[in-house]
Amino acid sequence: MKTLLLVAHGSRRAASNEEVQIITRRLAVQAIGRYDLVDCAFLEIASPLIPEAIQDLIDRGATQVVVLPYFLSAGRHVAEDIPKEVEGVKQANPGVDIRIVPHLGSAEGMTGLLLGLAGD
Amino acid sequence: MKTLLLVAHGSRRAASNEEVQIITRRLAVQAIGRYDLVDCAFLEIASPLIPEAIQDLIDRGATQVVVLPYFLSAGRHVAEDIPKEVEGVKQANPGVDIRIVPHLGSAEGMTGLLLGLAGD
Repeated sequence: MKTLLLVAHGSRRAASNEEVQIITRRLAVQAIGRYDLVDCAFLEIASPLIPEAIQDLIDRGATQVVVLPYFLSAGRHVAEDIPKEVEGVKQANPGVDIRIVPHLGSAEGMTGLLLGLAGD
Repeated sequence: MKTLLLVAHGSRRAASNEEVQIITRRLAVQAIGRYDLVDCAFLEIASPLIPEAIQDLIDRGATQVVVLPYFLSAGRHVAEDIPKEVEGVKQANPGVDIRIVPHLGSAEGMTGLLLGLAGD
């Protein structure tokens, strides 16, 4: 059972966290047939946090969890904090394939997306 | 003369600002034939700031400046701070078409980009 977890930073502004939930729902619709479950988690401040969200996916039957950092910059959060949060739940569930894929800011298609927004 | 200005938040971490400059260079390559100049600016902390970057594009001959917020969330920075920064230089240059387009987080193609990163 393949699952996808979109991980955002988390904000004190509730509307920002809701935006992440909205894009997660759009992602779930587009992922039908490719992922059985799509959910989101937050590195800090907002709920659910990364370990509990991954554990929840596993409890619901996940055999694979793809962790996708919804971050523009390859900073400390992406390089250190997210891997650290993932590590514990990974060790507790050695039979589950838990992998972190490259963060949003590194996406090849980013420039095309930006040019589309610019109106061209 | 059409120009495009990618506006990021700006970070105390120099590598994060350099990432914005790198994506701006990639954007400039992809925008050849559509924009005559592509540059970046920062809302705060890093240089150049938005008003000086827009003024620089105008000094170099821009008749149109498309301001593109490199932000995931539609928060205060996108809704209030960037428009405020743009407003002064807009009033000082009434002959130049300066427009702010929707922020990155609102892009229709975002979910497709995310699924691509996830490896599907």
